[in-house]
Amino acid sequence: MTSPSAALTGVVPPLLTPLTADGEIDLPSLERLVGRLLENEVDGIFALGSSGEVAFWDDARREAVLEAVTGTVAGQVPVLAGVIDMQTDRVLQHMRAAERFDLAGYVATAPFYAIAGPEEIDTHFRTLAAATDRPLWAYDIPVCVHVKLSTAHMLRLGTDGVITGVKDSSGDDVGFRRLALANRTAGSPLTLLTGHEVVVDGAYLAGADGSVPGLGNVDPAGYVRMHRAAQSGDWEQLRAEQDRLAQLFEIVFQPTDKVGPAAGVGAFKTALRELGIISTNTMARPMSPIEGETVDRIRAILGQTGLLDGGTATGEVAGA
Amino acid sequence: MTSPSAALTGVVPPLLTPLTADGEIDLPSLERLVGRLLENEVDGIFALGSSGEVAFWDDARREAVLEAVTGTVAGQVPVLAGVIDMQTDRVLQHMRAAERFDLAGYVATAPFYAIAGPEEIDTHFRTLAAATDRPLWAYDIPVCVHVKLSTAHMLRLGTDGVITGVKDSSGDDVGFRRLALANRTAGSPLTLLTGHEVVVDGAYLAGADGSVPGLGNVDPAGYVRMHRAAQSGDWEQLRAEQDRLAQLFEIVFQPTDKVGPAAGVGAFKTALRELGIISTNTMARPMSPIEGETVDRIRAILGQTGLLDGGTATGEVAGA
Amino acid sequence: MTSPSAALTGVVPPLLTPLTADGEIDLPSLERLVGRLLENEVDGIFALGSSGEVAFWDDARREAVLEAVTGTVAGQVPVLAGVIDMQTDRVLQHMRAAERFDLAGYVATAPFYAIAGPEEIDTHFRTLAAATDRPLWAYDIPVCVHVKLSTAHMLRLGTDGVITGVKDSSGDDVGFRRLALANRTAGSPLTLLTGHEVVVDGAYLAGADGSVPGLGNVDPAGYVRMHRAAQSGDWEQLRAEQDRLAQLFEIVFQPTDKVGPAAGVGAFKTALRELGIISTNTMARPMSPIEGETVDRIRAILGQTGLLDGGTATGEVAGA
Amino acid sequence: MTSPSAALTGVVPPLLTPLTADGEIDLPSLERLVGRLLENEVDGIFALGSSGEVAFWDDARREAVLEAVTGTVAGQVPVLAGVIDMQTDRVLQHMRAAERFDLAGYVATAPFYAIAGPEEIDTHFRTLAAATDRPLWAYDIPVCVHVKLSTAHMLRLGTDGVITGVKDSSGDDVGFRRLALANRTAGSPLTLLTGHEVVVDGAYLAGADGSVPGLGNVDPAGYVRMHRAAQSGDWEQLRAEQDRLAQLFEIVFQPTDKVGPAAGVGAFKTALRELGIISTNTMARPMSPIEGETVDRIRAILGQTGLLDGGTATGEVAGA
Repeated sequence: MTSPSAALTGVVPPLLTPLTADGEIDLPSLERLVGRLLENEVDGIFALGSSGEVAFWDDARREAVLEAVTGTVAGQVPVLAGVIDMQTDRVLQHMRAAERFDLAGYVATAPFYAIAGPEEIDTHFRTLAAATDRPLWAYDIPVCVHVKLSTAHMLRLGTDGVITGVKDSSGDDVGFRRLALANRTAGSPLTLLTGHEVVVDGAYLAGADGSVPGLGNVDPAGYVRMHRAAQSGDWEQLRAEQDRLAQLFEIVFQPTDKVGPAAGVGAFKTALRELGIISTNTMARPMSPIEGETVDRIRAILGQTGLLDGGTATGEVAGA
Repeated sequence: MTSPSAALTGVVPPLLTPLTADGEIDLPSLERLVGRLLENEVDGIFALGSSGEVAFWDDARREAVLEAVTGTVAGQVPVLAGVIDMQTDRVLQHMRAAERFDLAGYVATAPFYAIAGPEEIDTHFRTLAAATDRPLWAYDIPVCVHVKLSTAHMLRLGTDGVITGVKDSSGDDVGFRRLALANRTAGSPLTLLTGHEVVVDGAYLAGADGSVPGLGNVDPAGYVRMHRAAQSGDWEQLRAEQDRLAQLFEIVFQPTDKVGPAAGVGAFKTALRELGIISTNTMARPMSPIEGETVDRIRAILGQTGLLDGGTATGEVAGA
Repeated sequence: MTSPSAALTGVVPPLLTPLTADGEIDLPSLERLVGRLLENEVDGIFALGSSGEVAFWDDARREAVLEAVTGTVAGQVPVLAGVIDMQTDRVLQHMRAAERFDLAGYVATAPFYAIAGPEEIDTHFRTLAAATDRPLWAYDIPVCVHVKLSTAHMLRLGTDGVITGVKDSSGDDVGFRRLALANRTAGSPLTLLTGHEVVVDGAYLAGADGSVPGLGNVDPAGYVRMHRAAQSGDWEQLRAEQDRLAQLFEIVFQPTDKVGPAAGVGAFKTALRELGIISTNTMARPMSPIEGETVDRIRAILGQTGLLDGGTATGEVAGA
Repeated sequence: MTSPSAALTGVVPPLLTPLTADGEIDLPSLERLVGRLLENEVDGIFALGSSGEVAFWDDARREAVLEAVTGTVAGQVPVLAGVIDMQTDRVLQHMRAAERFDLAGYVATAPFYAIAGPEEIDTHFRTLAAATDRPLWAYDIPVCVHVKLSTAHMLRLGTDGVITGVKDSSGDDVGFRRLALANRTAGSPLTLLTGHEVVVDGAYLAGADGSVPGLGNVDPAGYVRMHRAAQSGDWEQLRAEQDRLAQLFEIVFQPTDKVGPAAGVGAFKTALRELGIISTNTMARPMSPIEGETVDRIRAILGQTGLLDGGTATGEVAGA
């Protein structure tokens, strides 16, 4: 069993939730997906994040996902669990339901739907932290939550031992630099992970401790190579790898008739199906899967970036 | 028992959820609050709306609220229930949990947190409608959901029998006028209720069938008088009443250190406590109640608008 | 010559700027357009507003427009001039250039492009007012300026004699009601005009003193009838007229390939060309005119709303 | 005289406009400011950008700035001129007025105030380019213009020879990476400069050709060192320098009572006054200068980052 207190850095992909054509959790696909991540030596796995379609699951499904993921990972790497919901009490409920699983921490956003101010956000995170012995991560994702977590506030929560780190999906690289700088000055109470797949190299320069890339489901090897390059200071390799991954990320812009996770997560699932890792690209209700010509364009990009060769999946080889 | 198929028009306050100092549902306060609404002849009650702090409750609390409200109302007027959650499956879960209560319909928003496009929004509402025999209302509240429901889409859902009406809290009076006009041209498949407390008179001119005013918890008599004035075409009385209620609505701008429901719902609860209707102004976690000088300013406005006289609550008299 | 100090209420259309096919000011068309407004007894004319395409003109063109408009109006009604530009000094320059014309006041927005805070907005309006003896109007149009003027601030500027009124195109009907209410309580230092063509009836209920409707270029008679109905308290006629004008306003939603003034002002110009009032629907550079099937749809709406009959313009008759 | 056709890369500070206490251009201060930039070997100078307070100047002042800047620079480095205004015709007017100066190109934004769609933006840039032989740069600054230039559109304008480069102040690092990648694939028709002072290192990794840093007025040496480090692949030095400059950038967050350029440009001017480079920190009307305790905090940061030592300006030394 992993130690909950160990700092979690490096590559921590937000795990997709493979589904059968009927919309049930596809356990064999999940096992292949997790297995490939572990073979490529990711540093952890983040279950029930936005890429895991957490917003779409009822409570039973959330538990089933955690059961499947922790069972499959079986302690080989730390698993973080998203406990994402509108307000404090529901998040607490998700935390209680997750206590029985082997988890290295929880990831929570600021409250949403009902507008929250600084006072409510502060009380929210402090209440969550007080309810568990496990590390708590703040998830800064304004595109979903519609509030940007403040640098000064995150740092104070870190200094006070409320949160252990921040998963930054804010798209605010200036804010991330400021947070990284202030964090270092304060003795680095926070671990900082970036969620932006195509600018991880810049985030490393800014001071990121790792990444939580949705695209890491599709190409874990690339993100692991980037992390190692960052650690060894090989910035030329880092940027070259990032450029290739940025090209790969173009898959999410192919579905011109879809937005949000139907486009982004949908593209990841479609790519993984084409790579032979998961069985379907079925999405959670009310989303529909990517079909037709868009699949061809995704396949073409997989080819251009070395993951698929002449119709044969070569991702594992390319990533080796 | 009320007929679920009857069109629900008029004044349908979104019921507050009175709490004890410990944060439990305060049943005696709820009974006084509901009793006063019924005495003032509201046309229906909307439980578990934004003003009912629905976003803050876990599932058990949601059920407890519905149990308390339907028990107290006891079929005297139709009760709508908010089934507000992030995506389709959770909303369905709330609907199933609510089936055992005496309800006249469900109120659902578009999906949120994960971005939804027109296709997902359409599938969402159609899936919800297919799961119940009860009428379904669309709740248009971009300030919480961060998407504006389209006029053409709402109308199509109405024509197709998917939704029975729209509760409009969009703040888009131009869009509301366009929806009302298009609805009338289409034979009025939709019932249109406005949620904007201070411009209900203009909404009546535009074609609203009624209102869902949070402030109606504080002054139900005023909103009922407005509705009757609209029905009898007495626009001068309507505007005079609306002006008084707009003045009363200034209570929500008094808490300068709070935003969202902590300010708005907090002001309603504080006013009702000062009027002697509910026992505390306790708010759902992580919100804190309004205190200090702000309470004095709220009392002053209650006095200026005829609801409170020299420290004695006279709301019922003023509203008689 | 009109008295600059007289309060300007009623219907004050923001005059379009008719162009020849070459993009020059089309004086004969302007004279027909103005003549029709005067025949229909508008209360004033607002030149160089957003509908007048002010943002697109260089300084020489702005002066040419004012020369043409004031020459054509010839003192029959008050003329307001928009002095819209990014920051204080340029607005002052426009005011100086306009001093030689027979104008009843200036209309200015908050500063834009460079972000302005409350202090800068306050200094801006006070500096403008100090530079002229003519009345100054604040133009609240967040869709262009990207800041909402605050109710309390406008009222203070009114009480201090800095501005004489507000042209509200904010789309915030709640804010407008609050401003109208606060203004009345303060002794009505401000004249309040609404710019939202399809909810003028509600604005009258809220306390508007008149309207500045772009659509008033197309159907001035309708807006004048609405104003008279408001003055006489005939709300049923008011709402019926507003419903018809709201139907007419659908012309601006017909150009599905255009946004902003290319759609809205473009639709007004196209309607007026079809009505035989102006010669072309040419737009200021870089906009292109509405063409093809969209014109047919606009004609159809003109027919449905009684302005055009079987291909013959009957607007003047309908408006008589 | 510089060749207009030479590609302009490297460090191109957007020059501040020093003012006397009376608000006139302070020529001696301008000469010291420019002289220090040239001593520190910047690659070009961008006059009349947002940092140059271009939005605040009337036409005479714009010309006076260009006269002063080109006279002072005297052909030692290329000078770009901002021709920023609301719509095409005014921008053309600024271009004509600037033709007599020794300039290496023009920098223009998308149209603003009146909403522009893709068609208008395209016509706008093509019309501007057709009116001059000088290179045209697109300035992507949504915080002022409220539209984000599309990657695909910029690339097409580059391929068509309409624009020579993009100054990116969009704050969208993902979009910048995508643009850089697509640009390289297309044979690099565009030169890409970033305007975000604290993430220039990441922009270099992404493929930036240089920077246009407002903070470069205060510490040109730091940005020049960063550019050289990027060229030589010394990423560790690059990040260290960027971290120091990010710390220095904290000066713009010190004025807690100001927003926009009153805070940002105000902080730059205040720093330069404290460093003895310019004589006052006077801002363009309607902005007021930074005063009091905020100045002390800015001085402290100048000290912490090695630009000021015990009250003595040491910026030149630090930058040597």
